Amino acid sequence: MISLEDYYDLVGDKVISTIHKKARKILGHHVLHINSTYQGGGVAEILSSLVPLMNDIGIDAGWRILHGNPDFFTITKKFHNALQGDKINLSDKKKSLYLKTNQDFSVYTHLNHNCIIIHDPQPLPLIKYFTKREPWIWRCHIDISNPNPRLWAFLKKMIIKYDHMIISNENYRKPNCAVDQTIIYPVIDPLSLKNKELPEKSINKFLRKFNIPMDKPIISQISRFDKWKDPLGVLEIFKQVKKSVDCRLILCGSMASDDPEGIKIYDKVKKKAKKYIENGEVILITLDNDILVNVLQRISKVIIQKSLKEGFGLTVTEAMWKKTPVIASKSGGIPLQIDHEVNGLLIDPSDMNGFAQGIIKLLKDQKYAERLGQNAREKVSDNFLITRLLEDYMDLITKVLYGI
Amino acid sequence: MISLEDYYDLVGDKVISTIHKKARKILGHHVLHINSTYQGGGVAEILSSLVPLMNDIGIDAGWRILHGNPDFFTITKKFHNALQGDKINLSDKKKSLYLKTNQDFSVYTHLNHNCIIIHDPQPLPLIKYFTKREPWIWRCHIDISNPNPRLWAFLKKMIIKYDHMIISNENYRKPNCAVDQTIIYPVIDPLSLKNKELPEKSINKFLRKFNIPMDKPIISQISRFDKWKDPLGVLEIFKQVKKSVDCRLILCGSMASDDPEGIKIYDKVKKKAKKYIENGEVILITLDNDILVNVLQRISKVIIQKSLKEGFGLTVTEAMWKKTPVIASKSGGIPLQIDHEVNGLLIDPSDMNGFAQGIIKLLKDQKYAERLGQNAREKVSDNFLITRLLEDYMDLITKVLYGI
Repeated sequence: MISLEDYYDLVGDKVISTIHKKARKILGHHVLHINSTYQGGGVAEILSSLVPLMNDIGIDAGWRILHGNPDFFTITKKFHNALQGDKINLSDKKKSLYLKTNQDFSVYTHLNHNCIIIHDPQPLPLIKYFTKREPWIWRCHIDISNPNPRLWAFLKKMIIKYDHMIISNENYRKPNCAVDQTIIYPVIDPLSLKNKELPEKSINKFLRKFNIPMDKPIISQISRFDKWKDPLGVLEIFKQVKKSVDCRLILCGSMASDDPEGIKIYDKVKKKAKKYIENGEVILITLDNDILVNVLQRISKVIIQKSLKEGFGLTVTEAMWKKTPVIASKSGGIPLQIDHEVNGLLIDPSDMNGFAQGIIKLLKDQKYAERLGQNAREKVSDNFLITRLLEDYMDLITKVLYGI
Repeated sequence: MISLEDYYDLVGDKVISTIHKKARKILGHHVLHINSTYQGGGVAEILSSLVPLMNDIGIDAGWRILHGNPDFFTITKKFHNALQGDKINLSDKKKSLYLKTNQDFSVYTHLNHNCIIIHDPQPLPLIKYFTKREPWIWRCHIDISNPNPRLWAFLKKMIIKYDHMIISNENYRKPNCAVDQTIIYPVIDPLSLKNKELPEKSINKFLRKFNIPMDKPIISQISRFDKWKDPLGVLEIFKQVKKSVDCRLILCGSMASDDPEGIKIYDKVKKKAKKYIENGEVILITLDNDILVNVLQRISKVIIQKSLKEGFGLTVTEAMWKKTPVIASKSGGIPLQIDHEVNGLLIDPSDMNGFAQGIIKLLKDQKYAERLGQNAREKVSDNFLITRLLEDYMDLITKVLYGI
């Protein structure tokens, strides 16, 4: 079982002790997290670590999953995209299924808690269907800097019922939304299967198992097959890099159960990369395997993250923690992590040549790549580990409960 | 929202009134159902109707989903098959992931209930990880008449911690298992999307949408692509029927999120039926759409259910409710539903010729088919509707709580 003690060697006395101290005011409190999937995607991953740790330090933290059918998830995926700026046909039918799914779930969800924390837009309407007897927090994990105005107006009526809203970036702050807003940067769990140290033997076993040859340097993007992650752009950059340095590209993206669009994007990439896939120079992996991701982030010479929009970009954090040099878009939370040419390379998402030149430099200059990787580890260690998130939640829950 | 009142016209005064009366002893009690999926499969379907109805009549019934990863569901699918008699390599690794998934879930699942109801083997071990403060009921939905002995011995140690066990058939009773056992037959919800009356217009819309021609009589099996449902056997029978009567076969099976084997069986069927699929005489549908199932069960001339093993066989019940003649295997709970040549045809699963001849008769003799269909509706109305299940649960919960 996960225990805070296990993090002692990584974060030290002071951090552990501070967390226990901060928990003291809310020991035994019953807190409930609700999101829409327990598999796939960054939210489920963070909750898998956060919720057991909250229990370990004496908070009764529950975690429940909204029950939705495939139509519901198709709609909420469209909402997700529209919150990131896409167009949407916000029909009454969509609104009604969205609300009804939440209402149905509320019928058999009985709350007797000190604080409710709702993650992302899917379970946002739940607050309408309960008599509010405790503070509710809405944790928004996505980029809402420029949401579709009609969708935002529809959701805002529900958001302002919340006592607090958590966002991932100063740019996402909504001055015209009266609810209190706190910025909490996402984090990674250094002890999860995706991030823990791996013995050479396991790494080699996985490389054999997934037929990944190590004869050429590997560039990887590890990210859902989603248009905002621009896998087609990555393919173009790879073609350009290949003219200077012989290398191999791996695109690895799990399919989240709440993401019906993933398969379409995947098919597009497959078609465009056909020739390269056939001769083994591009490898596509859709398997949802945390250790495989861990392995890929460790054996790659460069990790690319060419997001057009990004909530925070945890795959960047994961690679940085593993000292693998990262080249990524100046988008969403990525600039909060990467200081250009200090602990990674930060490129404008439209600058295809910039990406290609950066990768070529990292592949050719090993010392430079190593220095960036070393600095990247320190940046993550100081800022983006799960222990910091635990502290933030203790602070915020105390604040909404006692105003301190 | 689902309300018991909505069933009034279908079941009448007495049934509705009896349910309210039986609920009276446990009004306001907090009951929790736990299973492993909210989408796909009969268990999720029954809970989708049962849980809201329990709330409607004054029981605080909750419904939570065990969080498992794909490896966990691969293992529990093997357990499921082995409980139905398959061989299994019951390794320590399997046992340990099975237990650990339950233990992890228990960390963030806080119980403060009057009764816990666990469905099927996936969340069975939960009972090990809680201090028992209320009665626990294990509801087994599968055929355990001849389980793999080593697996059964492993599970039995956990089963006997339960206060009560529900099985679906007298044949599944375990005389050597000391826990109290009650038989509760599964049911269908006549008002669900899968079973409610459909206007002609909607039916035609669906037929067009899914390209289902009505120029020939249609035989359908609606069942997961699972070896126990023997879709390959259905294909053989269809070939034989086709020699006497020109007809079309539809195999329609959703993929449950806890069933990683489904896709393999599906590919096998697709390969074997290649020729027929190409000329449109066999149609395979994997879409998970309740209304489509409803339509298929109404427009088919014969519904076949060629299960080798069967828990109860709710797809048989569904078709019977719609007055469509059913020919099905003498296996699991099917003989409890079908009285041979009275309200359907009951054939030995190995008797391929018997299936073919039965279908031919139903296709050729319309009056006979209609009579069986009419009787089938009455059988279901008297025995297998959700209102009966609600009564059974009121009785059982009262019994485990008060011994009456």
